[in-house]
Amino acid sequence: MAKEDNTKAHELAKKQRDIGVAEFFSRNRHLLGFDNKRKALMTTIKEAVDNSLDACEEAGILPEIIVDVVDMGNDRFRVTIEDNGPGIVKAQIPKIFAKLLYGSKFHTMKQSRGQQGIGISASVMYAQLTTGRAAKITSKIHPNKPANYYELHVNTQQNKPEILKEEEKEWKKERGTKIEVDLEASYIGGSQSIDEYLKETAITNPHVTIIYTNPKAEQIIFPRATENVPKEAKEIKPHPHGVEMGMMIKLLKDTDSRTLQSFLTTEFSRVGGGTAKEICKNGALLPNTKPREMSRDMTEKLMEGIKKTKLINPPTDCISPIGEELLEKGLRKEINAEFYAAVTRPPSVYRGNPFVIEAGVAYGGDQNSEGTIRVMRFANRVPLLFQQGACATTKSIMGTGWRAYGLSQSQNSLPVGPCSIVVHIASVWVPFTSESKEAIAHYPEIIKEIKLALQECGRRLASYVRKRRKIADESKKRSYIETYIPYVGAALKELLSLKAADEEKISSMLNTILEKQRGTLEKIGVDNPDYDEDLAKIGKKEEEVIEDGEEN
Amino acid sequence: MAKEDNTKAHELAKKQRDIGVAEFFSRNRHLLGFDNKRKALMTTIKEAVDNSLDACEEAGILPEIIVDVVDMGNDRFRVTIEDNGPGIVKAQIPKIFAKLLYGSKFHTMKQSRGQQGIGISASVMYAQLTTGRAAKITSKIHPNKPANYYELHVNTQQNKPEILKEEEKEWKKERGTKIEVDLEASYIGGSQSIDEYLKETAITNPHVTIIYTNPKAEQIIFPRATENVPKEAKEIKPHPHGVEMGMMIKLLKDTDSRTLQSFLTTEFSRVGGGTAKEICKNGALLPNTKPREMSRDMTEKLMEGIKKTKLINPPTDCISPIGEELLEKGLRKEINAEFYAAVTRPPSVYRGNPFVIEAGVAYGGDQNSEGTIRVMRFANRVPLLFQQGACATTKSIMGTGWRAYGLSQSQNSLPVGPCSIVVHIASVWVPFTSESKEAIAHYPEIIKEIKLALQECGRRLASYVRKRRKIADESKKRSYIETYIPYVGAALKELLSLKAADEEKISSMLNTILEKQRGTLEKIGVDNPDYDEDLAKIGKKEEEVIEDGEEN
Repeated sequence: MAKEDNTKAHELAKKQRDIGVAEFFSRNRHLLGFDNKRKALMTTIKEAVDNSLDACEEAGILPEIIVDVVDMGNDRFRVTIEDNGPGIVKAQIPKIFAKLLYGSKFHTMKQSRGQQGIGISASVMYAQLTTGRAAKITSKIHPNKPANYYELHVNTQQNKPEILKEEEKEWKKERGTKIEVDLEASYIGGSQSIDEYLKETAITNPHVTIIYTNPKAEQIIFPRATENVPKEAKEIKPHPHGVEMGMMIKLLKDTDSRTLQSFLTTEFSRVGGGTAKEICKNGALLPNTKPREMSRDMTEKLMEGIKKTKLINPPTDCISPIGEELLEKGLRKEINAEFYAAVTRPPSVYRGNPFVIEAGVAYGGDQNSEGTIRVMRFANRVPLLFQQGACATTKSIMGTGWRAYGLSQSQNSLPVGPCSIVVHIASVWVPFTSESKEAIAHYPEIIKEIKLALQECGRRLASYVRKRRKIADESKKRSYIETYIPYVGAALKELLSLKAADEEKISSMLNTILEKQRGTLEKIGVDNPDYDEDLAKIGKKEEEVIEDGEEN
Repeated sequence: MAKEDNTKAHELAKKQRDIGVAEFFSRNRHLLGFDNKRKALMTTIKEAVDNSLDACEEAGILPEIIVDVVDMGNDRFRVTIEDNGPGIVKAQIPKIFAKLLYGSKFHTMKQSRGQQGIGISASVMYAQLTTGRAAKITSKIHPNKPANYYELHVNTQQNKPEILKEEEKEWKKERGTKIEVDLEASYIGGSQSIDEYLKETAITNPHVTIIYTNPKAEQIIFPRATENVPKEAKEIKPHPHGVEMGMMIKLLKDTDSRTLQSFLTTEFSRVGGGTAKEICKNGALLPNTKPREMSRDMTEKLMEGIKKTKLINPPTDCISPIGEELLEKGLRKEINAEFYAAVTRPPSVYRGNPFVIEAGVAYGGDQNSEGTIRVMRFANRVPLLFQQGACATTKSIMGTGWRAYGLSQSQNSLPVGPCSIVVHIASVWVPFTSESKEAIAHYPEIIKEIKLALQECGRRLASYVRKRRKIADESKKRSYIETYIPYVGAALKELLSLKAADEEKISSMLNTILEKQRGTLEKIGVDNPDYDEDLAKIGKKEEEVIEDGEEN
């Protein structure tokens, strides 16, 4: 047997160590979207462009982004992304580009594309791991100042920037930021390519101009479609209903407020003096209790008090949805269809985070009617191109009954038909299934809202599909009429011994009579108001039976 | 316009901050398996049990684990997990249970259940966030020493343990560790329940005894099926083919070796003196170059040299697969079927990490023949119960042509039939799609190996299914014979004016003749050696057309 100070436990203890966060992610790089060479290229461009768009939006600048991808052979690519954003102050450059979990967006409750402070540093780290080369950053914050230039590595063990070069540079640009990295990658076109990502980005961000040079040295320009910068999202405070016990304990410990009442009104949104008093009353607590003197049991009472108090939903100016009109416009621009519909749902809340779901449908036209429908997913205006199967969006589409809306569908599958479906979630905190931000986690509140948006699109679609079917039936009838009337005319001519001119006249008269008759029928079938009411009833029923979208 | 030192960039800079890793995961808790109350309960138990099993295995102890789940009402549960492992030395307890990214397994290249140093601290953090209560840890490392008792919180901002209570305690046990947490949770039975997880754990870990008390206060005991602790996995060094540029630069910087040659032989597995020289030659480098003097370009040459040099695959004693025999035994214990087969593939490598795939099939018997097959997934002997759709295993099963093996299957779907399929991956580093370790990432090498294992199972299955079909056909024929022979006998009696005794005799003779004839036919059909060869050819063909399993 081991001695008391030389046990197996002692032996095991020697191996216990801190695990660096950069180390962790460099081994788990697939969590960050660097599973393979193709995705690595895509992820790098996505992270840089998303950051540029966020920065321009915060500074109220109309973004113009230059993306340059050069194939250097031997599976190496040089990627350059340049924007006309506000620039980054010197001291922040190394940390922003070469330190994981560093940034401005994580602690801010408002909609933005980035949120984790991981993405761009992960690209720098991947480039360095695969080619050993440093990332080259240039940034300029004022027309009268020179640009700052850095060559950076990530120190993966300590998760901090390693500065290889640092200097001032002339840059003929008012302001902006440029990043250049060399990485191991591969370029393939198609539905999961940079080209598709940039195209979809241009759709949901009609205020951006993107100048893209692809690895074949072809330049593609996506010009902006509007001169209006989207309304800036406002920062909000947490809503009491989204705060859990542990967070409440922490807030009580950290606050500067002297009383429970002022704590409640200062630290949360939607809590005024009256509501604060009501919460205290419902929790059997005194409004002038000192926050620091709240014990665990008292905090538990406070939580009870909040639960019992009716509160207004969180404010939604922290969210900037695309809007029904622009979403439909985007669809029209992208897809050559016959019918379009778009819906923006009212704001909702999951775990205290406000969010808005938007959905759109494009039906018919050039779209393939044999295969499954096309799904386009967006989160905070960013296209999601990977892991469709793992996404709450897909789950919601599969869980909606599309047969009632005129598409064919097997149970728990994507519907089949000439149709595209777009879903957009806008939120202060989009819950992704991994750090690579490719799919939305299965929160029941989110799935419910997506389904409601889809059902509304579906009802409009159904009305159109039914109309179209009627028209198709009608033109079939018309072709019968056109085929047989001449024979009827000829037969009558024989029977009644008419002249050739009379035969023509009869044909034309028969035509007119039948067309009129048909017209009446058409009106009855298509514009029947009862029909749409029936559909509305179907929809209503479905809303009631939405099940709890629990993850599995 | 802004002044030079008061730009928008300056304003934005004020918001830039470090993001704590615990903060990050507490907001992204679904990444760790805490998406909802049900999963939270499951994940907590899983993390604790996995740790106990790892510790016992490392110490060569036959594990006996006590799992206690008490429903305290109001969505709160008290969970206690106690093992008879080696215990944890005092100084390590707070960090192991209340600091994310801390542990012994991340830096060790050998198979273990845990690998990230996140799991159990995440459970402690979730418990604290939802109930505010501290985790209570007791651990004892030697029979003659008292146990150490701690009450712990995670300081989420700084990711470090907060010790609320610390004392010595008497504990009537030789050694072991116990954790008790209160958390918000919900308990539901079924295929994703604790019960299922523990049952499956018992199958792939036949050396463990689990004593489980469920929330209904029913005690369920899974007794061990073998007294042999699995062979301990050995730690290995990285294989040169799995090391990338960035890692190589780091290794060259950190090494104590004085020459390139000794660097190669000491830091890597499968590199002896001769191989090291060959690598240097292939890279046009001198073997006595000092590692610290290797420039980026020279390192690039070294990488080229490694690529050009043929190397033996990494050693595989770092992996401890279950084995065909035990896997089949486990299947027989769990599933009442007619046919069983299990396969352990030879070791393979992805990104320098050795891994072994095992697969098993159970067919027929009590299993439902209408629905899709049942899939059981394991990674390093741990059952994976969630995110089946996102798993490389599922993708591989769907991408295998099961029709050739006698199951029905639509394109790119799970096959349908009375069948269960088990897949186990054993590796020094299992690449999961998220920190919650629920699904395996889509590495092409892994998908290829899974498919090969499934195909081998499939071929054996096909041979059985065909045999079974033959037998079914035969018994149909037999029933015809049995039905019609008496009539033939009666007819002959009429025709030839025989006695009743003769009629019986004729019937029995006819029976014998026909049975004999049928027996011959059966032999030709079923045991036809050509038949199995044909099947082998089908299999061969499939192996060739395995496509690149790129993620999408």
